[in-house]
Amino acid sequence: MTKDIRVTVWNEGLHEKELPKCREIYPDGMGRQIGRHLEKQAGIASVHCSELSDPGQGLDEAILANTDVMIWWGHKAHDQVTDENARRVQKRVQQGMGLIVLHSGHMSKPFMLLMGTACNLKWREYGEHGEKERLWVVDPSHPIVEGLPEYIELPNTEMYGEPFGIPQPDQQVFISWFQGGEVFRSGCCWHREAGKVFYFRPGHETFPIYHNELVLKVIYNAVKWAAPTHLAGGYTQGNVKPLEKMD
Amino acid sequence: MTKDIRVTVWNEGLHEKELPKCREIYPDGMGRQIGRHLEKQAGIASVHCSELSDPGQGLDEAILANTDVMIWWGHKAHDQVTDENARRVQKRVQQGMGLIVLHSGHMSKPFMLLMGTACNLKWREYGEHGEKERLWVVDPSHPIVEGLPEYIELPNTEMYGEPFGIPQPDQQVFISWFQGGEVFRSGCCWHREAGKVFYFRPGHETFPIYHNELVLKVIYNAVKWAAPTHLAGGYTQGNVKPLEKMD
Amino acid sequence: MTKDIRVTVWNEGLHEKELPKCREIYPDGMGRQIGRHLEKQAGIASVHCSELSDPGQGLDEAILANTDVMIWWGHKAHDQVTDENARRVQKRVQQGMGLIVLHSGHMSKPFMLLMGTACNLKWREYGEHGEKERLWVVDPSHPIVEGLPEYIELPNTEMYGEPFGIPQPDQQVFISWFQGGEVFRSGCCWHREAGKVFYFRPGHETFPIYHNELVLKVIYNAVKWAAPTHLAGGYTQGNVKPLEKMD
Amino acid sequence: MTKDIRVTVWNEGLHEKELPKCREIYPDGMGRQIGRHLEKQAGIASVHCSELSDPGQGLDEAILANTDVMIWWGHKAHDQVTDENARRVQKRVQQGMGLIVLHSGHMSKPFMLLMGTACNLKWREYGEHGEKERLWVVDPSHPIVEGLPEYIELPNTEMYGEPFGIPQPDQQVFISWFQGGEVFRSGCCWHREAGKVFYFRPGHETFPIYHNELVLKVIYNAVKWAAPTHLAGGYTQGNVKPLEKMD
Repeated sequence: MTKDIRVTVWNEGLHEKELPKCREIYPDGMGRQIGRHLEKQAGIASVHCSELSDPGQGLDEAILANTDVMIWWGHKAHDQVTDENARRVQKRVQQGMGLIVLHSGHMSKPFMLLMGTACNLKWREYGEHGEKERLWVVDPSHPIVEGLPEYIELPNTEMYGEPFGIPQPDQQVFISWFQGGEVFRSGCCWHREAGKVFYFRPGHETFPIYHNELVLKVIYNAVKWAAPTHLAGGYTQGNVKPLEKMD
Repeated sequence: MTKDIRVTVWNEGLHEKELPKCREIYPDGMGRQIGRHLEKQAGIASVHCSELSDPGQGLDEAILANTDVMIWWGHKAHDQVTDENARRVQKRVQQGMGLIVLHSGHMSKPFMLLMGTACNLKWREYGEHGEKERLWVVDPSHPIVEGLPEYIELPNTEMYGEPFGIPQPDQQVFISWFQGGEVFRSGCCWHREAGKVFYFRPGHETFPIYHNELVLKVIYNAVKWAAPTHLAGGYTQGNVKPLEKMD
Repeated sequence: MTKDIRVTVWNEGLHEKELPKCREIYPDGMGRQIGRHLEKQAGIASVHCSELSDPGQGLDEAILANTDVMIWWGHKAHDQVTDENARRVQKRVQQGMGLIVLHSGHMSKPFMLLMGTACNLKWREYGEHGEKERLWVVDPSHPIVEGLPEYIELPNTEMYGEPFGIPQPDQQVFISWFQGGEVFRSGCCWHREAGKVFYFRPGHETFPIYHNELVLKVIYNAVKWAAPTHLAGGYTQGNVKPLEKMD
Repeated sequence: MTKDIRVTVWNEGLHEKELPKCREIYPDGMGRQIGRHLEKQAGIASVHCSELSDPGQGLDEAILANTDVMIWWGHKAHDQVTDENARRVQKRVQQGMGLIVLHSGHMSKPFMLLMGTACNLKWREYGEHGEKERLWVVDPSHPIVEGLPEYIELPNTEMYGEPFGIPQPDQQVFISWFQGGEVFRSGCCWHREAGKVFYFRPGHETFPIYHNELVLKVIYNAVKWAAPTHLAGGYTQGNVKPLEKMD
C-alpha cells in the first residue's frame, strides 16, 4: 500500500464559471473544495487540482506520472476531453493508478473505457430542491465505509436510477434509495489490471454535496483503498521461455 | 442443463393451519400454490410438495435423491427442522441440487449453512396493509429476468432492509425499493460447489404474493437456472497420483 | 432464454489462405469447422459464417441484427477490423447479443472494448509440437461444463500465461495448467449490460484444436449460456418522472 | 482501517510434539514462527499465540475479544476443536474479525462454517521431497501482493488440486501450478458480513514453508488487508420503524 499518496483532483470546471449558484456554493470550484479536504488528511502527500481548461487539459504525462489516485468530476463537457487524454487515464489505471469517479462522471470517457459498457442510467432533477437520497452501506467489512453510520442521508439531490449500465461491481459498497421510487448502486469498486476504480454517486453542481462531512469521508477512505499496489519487479507479458525443462 | 426438472416445494405449512387469512389466500397452502403453477410449465418433469409435518419432515434421502431443484418456504419453525435434515439439504446442494429460498427462508437452517453467515436483516410489517415494494432488475442479461418488465411492484408487503447479512451474491439480479426508506438485495444468485442457490425476497403468509404472475414467473425462471449441471464422470477429491511423469 | 439461437461465427480467415498446414487441418477454414458442428446441435436455429474479407467485414447491421450469439476468431489482423465495426459488436453485446471469444481473440478490438483492459498475457509456441495444456473445471455447477470430464487435456498447444490483463471474471469456469510452468484463466464469463461474454482459450491455426470433441462441446454449451435474455418491454434510461407522489 | 492490529496465531500444535522433523524446522512451533515474524512488522500492536492444548483451546471469549485478525493452522485434529469454539470464531468474523486460514486449515471447522461448502480438494505428498509449486499473482492490484515478484516458487511442497470446494472468491489473488499436472486457487479473499477471510495455501509440517520470506510477506500483507472496518455506530438488524412518513 502506498503510504504517501499523491492525489490529482480533475474537475471539468465549467459550471463554476457559468452558474452563479455553483460559484456561491463552491467559490473556488468543486475540485478545490475536495482537494482542500484531502490535503489535511493523514497519508496524503500532495494534492494537485487539474481543470479541463489547463494546458493539456490537466492530463499530461507529467501530471499522470505523479498521480497515485485521481478523482474525476465531469458533466457537460465529457466530449471535450480528447480521446488521447482519456486513453492515457485508462492506461495509467491499468498500470496501477487509482481512479475515483464522482456523480456525473459515470459518462466520462475514462470511466466508460474502463467499464466496457455505456454506463447509462435513469436520472431526474426534481424541482428546485431535488429529492431525498439515502445511501445504505451493504458491505460493512469494506475499508471505504470506515467510520460511517449505516446510511448517509442527502436531503436534496438529483436522482440516479437502475438499471445502471455497468459490469457487476467486484465489491458493492453502497446502494441508494430515492424518494421518487428508484434504487441505485451508488458505491461500486472494480479492479482493472494493476489499478482500482471506485464510482461514488453523490455530487452536484448546485447542491452543496461536497460540503457534507460523510461524503468527504467516503472520498478520503476511497483514496486510501485505491492507492497503488506495487509488485517488486512489475510483471511480464508477451513471449516468454518455459520455466520448466521441456523434453 | 437438465431438460426435465424434478421439483420439490418444501413448505413449513404452519401459518396455513393457524391463520384463517392465510388459509383464505392459500386454501391448499403456499407450497401447493407454487407447485401447481410450476407443474404446468415447460421442462418440468414433476412437482412434489413436502411439508414439515410429513414423515421425515419431507426431507428424507429418497425425496432429495429425486429432486433437481428444491424450493423452500419457512418462517416460524426454522428451529424445528432437524440439524440432520438441514445438513442433508446443504450436502445435496453441494452435489448439484438447485435451491430456491423464498422470503423468510433467509433464516432457515439450510440457507444459513450454505451462506456461512447469519443472514439477518431489517424488517417491518406496517399496519394491516404493509407497504409498497418495487423490485428493480439490475442485471438485464440474467436468465432469471426473462420476460419481465424492468421492475415488479408489490403494493402491499412486508419490508426487508439492508444490511442483509449475506456474502456478496455471485450475480445480483434484483434490488428492492421500499416505501419506508429502505433498500434490499432481493434477488441473489450463488454457486455452491456443484449446486446453485437463488434467494428471492417476495412472499408472505397473509399477502397474496404467490398469486402474482410476475413473482411466479421469476420462480419458474429460477428453477430452470438452478437445474443441475452434470460432469460426465463427476470429479475427484482426496489423494491422487500425479498426472505428469515425476523425476 | 432464447430457444432457437441464431449463431454467427466470425473468422479472420487469413491463416487459412497463407498457411498450407492450416488449410490441411481446416480445409474450409476454422469458422466453418466450428459452424458445421453447431448447426447439427439442438436449439440452434441457424449458423452464418462471416469473414474479414466479406463485404462490410461480415459485421454489418443486418448480420448483427440477426445474430443471437457471435463466435469470434481473430489473430493477426485485429487492427484491420474497423473501429466502427468493433464498436457495433460491442454495442450489440450491450443490447443482448452473446459473444464467445476464442484463443487469440483476447486482443481483438471488440473483446478489449468490452473488458476495458489491455487483455495482454504471456505466450509461447514451443517448437513444432507446442506443449501440453490441461484445462481444469473449477466451477462444476456452471452450465458451460455440462457433460465434460473434470479436465480437458490438449497434448499439443500454444501456451498462454498469467497475469492475463482482464477484469476478474463474474464466473471462473476453467483454469489451465501448462507443461512449461504457467497457469491461465482459460474459461471466463462476464455479463455486460444486457449481453454475456465468454472467453475460451483453446484454439490455434496449426493445431487441430477445433476437431477436439470436448472443445466443441464447450463452445456449444457456451452458445446456449450466452443466448440473449429478453425483458418484456426492454428498459428505460435517461430522464424519468417520479414513480411516487412527491410532496 | 485498524491502525494497530492485535493478532492471534492459532496453531493446532500436534505435529510439533510428534514429528522430530517438524520440531527441527520449527523448534517453537509453526505458530510462534509466524508470530515472531509478525510482531516485528509495522502496524502490529500485539501477537498472541494460541494452541489447541491451551485452556479453552485458546479460543475463549477474552482472547477473541482482543483479536483483530486471527491466523489459523490446523491439520490432523480439526474434529477436536469444539463446535462451540468453531462457532465463536465464525461469529467473531461476522462481527468484524479478520481470519487468515493457512494450508490444511481448508477443512477446519471455522473455515467450513464460513464458506458453507465442504472445502475438499485433491492432494498428494510426493515421496520425501514433495514437488514444485509456483504461485502466480493473478490480481496485481490487490494489496495482498504488495512487494512480491510475479510468482512465488516453492521447490518442495505438498500438492493441492482443483476442484477446490469453495464459493468463488470475491477476489482471486493467486493461482498455483504444480509439477504433477494440477492447478489450485491458492490465494482467495472473501467478505463475510463485517469480517474478511483470506485462504492461503502454502504451509506444511515438514517442509520449511514458513521460513520463506515471500510467504511471510503475504501473511503480513493479509493481516493488514483483513484488519477490521468499523462503522461509527455499528448497524441495526431486526424490527425497525419506517424512516419515511407513511400515509
